[in-house]
Amino acid sequence: MGDALRIALLGCGVVGSQVVRLLDEQAGDLAARVGVPLELAGVAVRRPARHTDLPAGLVTTDAAGLVARGDVDIVVEVIGGIEPVRSLLLDALAGGKSVVSANKALLAEDGATLHDAAAKAGVDLYYEAAVAGAIPLLRPLRESLAGDRITRVIGIVNGTTNFILSRMDATGAGFDEALGEATELGYAEADPTADVDGFDAAAKAAILAGLAFHTRVTASDVYREGIGAVSAADVASAKAMNCTIKLLAICERTRGADGTEQVAVRVHPAMLPRSHPLAGVGDAFNAVFVEADAAGSLMFYGRGAGGAPTASAILGDLVAVARNRVRGSRGTGESSYAALRVQPMGEVTTRYHVALDVADQPGVLAAVAGAFAEQGVSIQTVRQEGRGDAATLVLVTHTATDDALSRTVRHLADMPFVRRAASVMRVEGTVNE
Amino acid sequence: MGDALRIALLGCGVVGSQVVRLLDEQAGDLAARVGVPLELAGVAVRRPARHTDLPAGLVTTDAAGLVARGDVDIVVEVIGGIEPVRSLLLDALAGGKSVVSANKALLAEDGATLHDAAAKAGVDLYYEAAVAGAIPLLRPLRESLAGDRITRVIGIVNGTTNFILSRMDATGAGFDEALGEATELGYAEADPTADVDGFDAAAKAAILAGLAFHTRVTASDVYREGIGAVSAADVASAKAMNCTIKLLAICERTRGADGTEQVAVRVHPAMLPRSHPLAGVGDAFNAVFVEADAAGSLMFYGRGAGGAPTASAILGDLVAVARNRVRGSRGTGESSYAALRVQPMGEVTTRYHVALDVADQPGVLAAVAGAFAEQGVSIQTVRQEGRGDAATLVLVTHTATDDALSRTVRHLADMPFVRRAASVMRVEGTVNE
Ligand SMILES: NC(=O)c1ccc[n+]([C@@H]2O[C@H](COP(=O)([O-])OP(=O)(O)OC[C@H]3O[C@@H](n4cnc5c(N)ncnc54)[C@H](OP(=O)(O)O)[C@@H]3O)[C@@H](O)[C@H]2O)c1
Ligand SMILES: NC(=O)c1ccc[n+]([C@@H]2O[C@H](COP(=O)([O-])OP(=O)(O)OC[C@H]3O[C@@H](n4cnc5c(N)ncnc54)[C@H](OP(=O)(O)O)[C@@H]3O)[C@@H](O)[C@H]2O)c1
Repeated sequence: MGDALRIALLGCGVVGSQVVRLLDEQAGDLAARVGVPLELAGVAVRRPARHTDLPAGLVTTDAAGLVARGDVDIVVEVIGGIEPVRSLLLDALAGGKSVVSANKALLAEDGATLHDAAAKAGVDLYYEAAVAGAIPLLRPLRESLAGDRITRVIGIVNGTTNFILSRMDATGAGFDEALGEATELGYAEADPTADVDGFDAAAKAAILAGLAFHTRVTASDVYREGIGAVSAADVASAKAMNCTIKLLAICERTRGADGTEQVAVRVHPAMLPRSHPLAGVGDAFNAVFVEADAAGSLMFYGRGAGGAPTASAILGDLVAVARNRVRGSRGTGESSYAALRVQPMGEVTTRYHVALDVADQPGVLAAVAGAFAEQGVSIQTVRQEGRGDAATLVLVTHTATDDALSRTVRHLADMPFVRRAASVMRVEGTVNE
Repeated sequence: MGDALRIALLGCGVVGSQVVRLLDEQAGDLAARVGVPLELAGVAVRRPARHTDLPAGLVTTDAAGLVARGDVDIVVEVIGGIEPVRSLLLDALAGGKSVVSANKALLAEDGATLHDAAAKAGVDLYYEAAVAGAIPLLRPLRESLAGDRITRVIGIVNGTTNFILSRMDATGAGFDEALGEATELGYAEADPTADVDGFDAAAKAAILAGLAFHTRVTASDVYREGIGAVSAADVASAKAMNCTIKLLAICERTRGADGTEQVAVRVHPAMLPRSHPLAGVGDAFNAVFVEADAAGSLMFYGRGAGGAPTASAILGDLVAVARNRVRGSRGTGESSYAALRVQPMGEVTTRYHVALDVADQPGVLAAVAGAFAEQGVSIQTVRQEGRGDAATLVLVTHTATDDALSRTVRHLADMPFVRRAASVMRVEGTVNE
């Protein structure tokens, strides 16, 4: 067997500590699979006193120094965030080291710079763990479906929000109560902003769209709405239509008004019919649907987060990167030749569910229907529930541009007989009332 | 852009014709993804008169001559069967051509010879399409999970039998009636033996087990029972337990009596609780569950067959193989270092469901329970349904070796008060009556 490949581990928290464990426990199998042993050269952390369980001499606070060492072949990054990580990884790549990372935030913000650096140095940059944890997803998109035309990727890619929405659906609880439960059970972090406001899902959506459509997509290209405004009333309204509410990451191949092929990438809560396979994805699980011309619909399901599942994805990348180094080759790099335009949200076609509390008087339905017609939006179903002098109108539209739909909703809210828009939410899949 | 890579297509039937279509329709994208164009050098068929739609000059009946041509870089094989295909592919590999194949029968019978030839020549042998059609499965097993320890792969990998069992479950029809329906709708071939008797699923199980456990497994190592003996009574019995019957391919890491790690690979119908995610996989769909130490449970779902989905998987492999040739490198080859023993079925632990028609007389239950106890088999649940002077005893066992269980069932059938074993079937998953 040849010389060992030496690994610098940056970060040793929830994920990194599991990487250390697996490298140790699986050492024999990893060596057999790669062809040479994988050896830990050093572990960079911030607070070394917390890491006395690591073999002596491995721990350092000097991440830059570790990355620069001549005896390091591969850098595994599980620190997270933009800086200092970006600089560290650019240094690693420039120094001819291959990189494995779980850092969705960095890849979605500035993947292009990293990919360019990897290509220039002729080394690998892999990041399967950045999206949907243990679920093999990026490699299938990049390789298995490389001969097909992907039209749509739609998924539940954030476990925290899925846990919260699943609880709201199961118990009728409001958002705050469900978030509290998630925090208590360790499903939500102390500062849940990145999850709840959809930043985490948006970063993943950007990465998925880039791979699926061979186009550079950054987090700022992604339309983003979190779940903080999802109310118990929304959940009840969804239930009445035999739907559930999920935070979806949706990447679509679309057509612009001029007929050109474009892509739309968005993250928002949506009502989904319970018959949809994604509707049954509970707790903190992740699942992603991929639609391609020849392959049809595919689904991938599993654990989207957690130390061990994420470490599994990292180790898979590590073996791939190591095998490439042993062979003196390089895996598939970035593919962004299509360079499709990212369509602004207003131009994307969506469907809306709208529940309005209205005064129960003649002409209300006609006025509401007129407001939709004025924007060119046609209505699929409408249901009226009377309650004394008030009534609730529940409408589901056909598809229209998101602009036309949101404009209509704004107009409606201003109408004198509309007391309140009780629930406004986009709808995905085929809804039958 | 560099010189085109030239492809010899062997076979142009259901799958091959879709490969031709996609190569043509996706030509621009494929070239961009590979780095050079992919060009069809020739198409070998048996009956050229049927292929007048192909560009003139491409069609030949001389597959061996096509494979031997100096201007061919990659051979795509979609003929099927063992010979002449094995000889053709060995010639191709020896001649330095990379091979993409959908041929599960050949890979399961003699994959080792092909892998050795590919390794010797330093070229690729890819066959994602051979198992579960469009579902990316072999690449995730080989690469994404390469850093993990897979413990179990359990799947529905044959669409024909899944369609038949789904119909029996939905309508209460017998096997013959459901098979007739499948044939009529084109889900079953004129000679359905390979599907119905489990040969197709067994070949796929061998391939999956080989990849999952880094061990050479051939079709003859796979315990195999088809669905021909599944009766309407079995289906009804399953329903009464809130189960459905599926033909499962099961690959497990096991322990031998001596404590050594072994693998068990089997294909047989089994009762599965309706709450199990595989229970909901209907029609001709395929789905595969993978369990790994760090990743946890993963599921892959999609179309397991059909011209276009299978061609999608082939094109994915083709792009990978072509990218490797452009880089002058080679993908991951066979990994069989673990060389685990394949455990004979008799030693494998399973669970049984047994429904016995018995005379309703005192001591019957005691005698039946005694027969199980004698073989060291403990019973999880028992239910007695009286009907006049006869009764039906329905038992579900705890796990025991398949030998002990089948021996017990044979003993029971010989007991004087047992009129008939109405249904005997293995059980997977957690069953609660
Ligand atoms: N947790 C998951 O389930 C999950 C899933 C998928 C992807 N990810 C991604 O994986 C990455 C790590 O996540 P995590 O949950 O493991 O985070 P974590 O538990 O907070 O661990 C972060 C680690 O980085 C170290 N660190 C922080 N700043 C550093 C610096 N400047 N130099 C050196 N070390 C530094 C910390 O050191 P100390 O230990 O000394 O504080 C700690 O060991 C993130 O990109 C995250 O998005 C996580
Ligand atoms: N069909 C599926 O859904 C599916 C799914 C997964 C995997 N597969 C696998 O894909 C392979 C092909 O399946 P298929 O359904 O496409 O089969 P098919 O429709 O029967 O086509 C077989 C093709 O091979 C040609 N052929 C047969 N013997 C030949 C020979 N000796 N030399 C040259 N050409 C020969 C036939 O020529 P003629 O056209 O002139 O008869 C035909 O074009 C099989 O290994 C199968 O297991 C199929």
